[in-house]
Amino acid sequence: MSASKPLDYESPHKKSAKKFILKEYIQLTAGPANFSDRVLQALSMQCLNPLSKEMHLMMDEVKAMLQYLFQTTNPLTLVNQTSGSGGNESILTNLLDSGDKLVIAVGGTWGEKVQDMAQRYAIDVLAIRKPPGEIFTLEELEDAVKSHQANLLFVTHGESSGGTLQQLEGIGPMCHKYDCLLAVDAVASMGVDPLYTDRWQLDAVCTASQKAIGSPPGLCLLTFSPRAEKRIKAKKTKSPYYFDMTRQGLYFDCFVDDHSRQYHYTFSSNLLAALREALAQVCEEGLSEVWERHKRNSEYLWKKMGDIGLECFVEKVQNRFHGITCIKIPSGIDQLELLKFVKDKYDIEIAYGHGPTLNKAMRIGLLGQNSRPEVVDYLVQALKDGMEQLIKRGTN
Amino acid sequence: MSASKPLDYESPHKKSAKKFILKEYIQLTAGPANFSDRVLQALSMQCLNPLSKEMHLMMDEVKAMLQYLFQTTNPLTLVNQTSGSGGNESILTNLLDSGDKLVIAVGGTWGEKVQDMAQRYAIDVLAIRKPPGEIFTLEELEDAVKSHQANLLFVTHGESSGGTLQQLEGIGPMCHKYDCLLAVDAVASMGVDPLYTDRWQLDAVCTASQKAIGSPPGLCLLTFSPRAEKRIKAKKTKSPYYFDMTRQGLYFDCFVDDHSRQYHYTFSSNLLAALREALAQVCEEGLSEVWERHKRNSEYLWKKMGDIGLECFVEKVQNRFHGITCIKIPSGIDQLELLKFVKDKYDIEIAYGHGPTLNKAMRIGLLGQNSRPEVVDYLVQALKDGMEQLIKRGTN
Repeated sequence: MSASKPLDYESPHKKSAKKFILKEYIQLTAGPANFSDRVLQALSMQCLNPLSKEMHLMMDEVKAMLQYLFQTTNPLTLVNQTSGSGGNESILTNLLDSGDKLVIAVGGTWGEKVQDMAQRYAIDVLAIRKPPGEIFTLEELEDAVKSHQANLLFVTHGESSGGTLQQLEGIGPMCHKYDCLLAVDAVASMGVDPLYTDRWQLDAVCTASQKAIGSPPGLCLLTFSPRAEKRIKAKKTKSPYYFDMTRQGLYFDCFVDDHSRQYHYTFSSNLLAALREALAQVCEEGLSEVWERHKRNSEYLWKKMGDIGLECFVEKVQNRFHGITCIKIPSGIDQLELLKFVKDKYDIEIAYGHGPTLNKAMRIGLLGQNSRPEVVDYLVQALKDGMEQLIKRGTN
Repeated sequence: MSASKPLDYESPHKKSAKKFILKEYIQLTAGPANFSDRVLQALSMQCLNPLSKEMHLMMDEVKAMLQYLFQTTNPLTLVNQTSGSGGNESILTNLLDSGDKLVIAVGGTWGEKVQDMAQRYAIDVLAIRKPPGEIFTLEELEDAVKSHQANLLFVTHGESSGGTLQQLEGIGPMCHKYDCLLAVDAVASMGVDPLYTDRWQLDAVCTASQKAIGSPPGLCLLTFSPRAEKRIKAKKTKSPYYFDMTRQGLYFDCFVDDHSRQYHYTFSSNLLAALREALAQVCEEGLSEVWERHKRNSEYLWKKMGDIGLECFVEKVQNRFHGITCIKIPSGIDQLELLKFVKDKYDIEIAYGHGPTLNKAMRIGLLGQNSRPEVVDYLVQALKDGMEQLIKRGTN
């Protein structure tokens, strides 16, 4: 075969050589959040051989930091190279066979998405729902688990689409009474609001790299309890290859009886190095302080919003998630125009409503490095300016 | 809930604050290959909102460059956030229902992996095999497609585990005679040896970001012919959510009848920006020159290897893949010691054998930026030095 054969299609570069420069924004959507300089530096190194001892060292360090982050001693604590959605799909497909029974406590679009996933595997789903701004009581969850004879209960901790925080204490022991496992989507809440995997008896927890942890999107972080690990081993059918926690667990050296670190697929050393640096920053600050900081700055945002006449969408303070604040769209304001204004003039990105907040609220994320009082001050100034300008335009 | 609750587990940072510096190597394994400075610069920018117009612009640019790379006008040409393995699993699960018939032309470990994947979905697999160093004839493939009444034939183009290049011309038209689709794993071969999606009537082609394209691992690049797209639409069951090409195709704006760019999952702007830069470099150099360069430098390597007494594992020159060269382990040499020597003294990583080459050959990748004569010279010098030192040690 000759390499000099004429091409059928011309290079697009020859048609148009124009470049665009990517501008950097303050990302106050529901994530991803901005990265620290340390994370960017770790990200931008030459790649490593995924089977090298340098990668193994990084994986060991990341695993130890993840156990701290998840507050667990679970050996099966690891990273998979997908988004958070892929992480939730990994949980479903490693714990359930088709026909198994799943209860999903739907708090917004993330719960809906888990339902979509489960149906693809012919899992028998009971989805329960609450009005926007409300969370589930332990009794409501127990009724559903009991009546559906569930093998797994799936709960979203911080719902970024609706701004609520589901209380988790007590749910684990309740599930275990009925031989049901408890899975928690902590994609948005990890490193924001307290979560104790072992103390609260959570069987599978998933989060993503790009929220409060502050590293680039592309990785999901997972932990499975010994009870969940037993279920994985007892499963009749295998999960999709790419989500196979037994294979990825081998690669991350999570099993006592096999240290072969067998290759699963090509894992990105760049994403892993960036995650390692982001986790190191969380460890250096300390989880208690990280949680306290997110709480403090969100409460500060709520107070400052009140000062300029903006209201929280989630009315009960005890139901509010400290990572994403949903703000009722002020009357007379076109939210898309307001979003555009703060982006164009202040370089701030915030998010429009989604799911329970669709056309009702805007969503503001104060996650990781962005959870700082000076960010709140700058944002509130931008929103105030935006509202004044839009009202002025409207009356002209 | 109070954020100041005591933690159950201590931060690993408090136990050990030691850091390690990641050293950079010349990556001459089967991939990932080293990145250019332009790619590293694009990688290390602040993240973008995955729903922003900046992301849309980048996706459009990437799509146009991918069409050139794949030599296709297929509208369904896109990126998914997985490794190459995840890309192959996406092809299987978007084109086949359980019970459908699949022929896999196994050329090494990548074909074996596709078989493992297919069995997880209860796909009816016929795997055909050839001795190491050999490739399939069109007649052998036709016999298998006919006898198995296949819905899909899966072929690996460049087999990085065995060093062979499967000829592709003629297979597409043959498959279509039997109403069978043709899928090609071009993970290792894309941007190395010529591949013409449209001219050769390939229905689904997958490659990965980290081989000859030269961007970080974590993305797979895919194209589907109109024939394949029709099959996707006609499928009875849905693919896994994360692999859903209809949803990811919407996000990448691949369909004429729906430009909603609907959110699928959080896509990494960092990986996309790096890929965009790497693709731009391919476009600037031009595919013909890129292919010619890989051919020229691999032939140069084969010649120089001969000069120091090393032999190619794939004996027939016309069967050799120009991306990965497999070298017979010279007698009296422990390959793991040789690999360690060139890594420690020369900062070069090469790979041990795998699958057909296990304990028989070492594997050397000259991919992307690493396909240069000076890299070949430096590598051959390192191998020569290593062999001499090891033989000296052995005789002392």
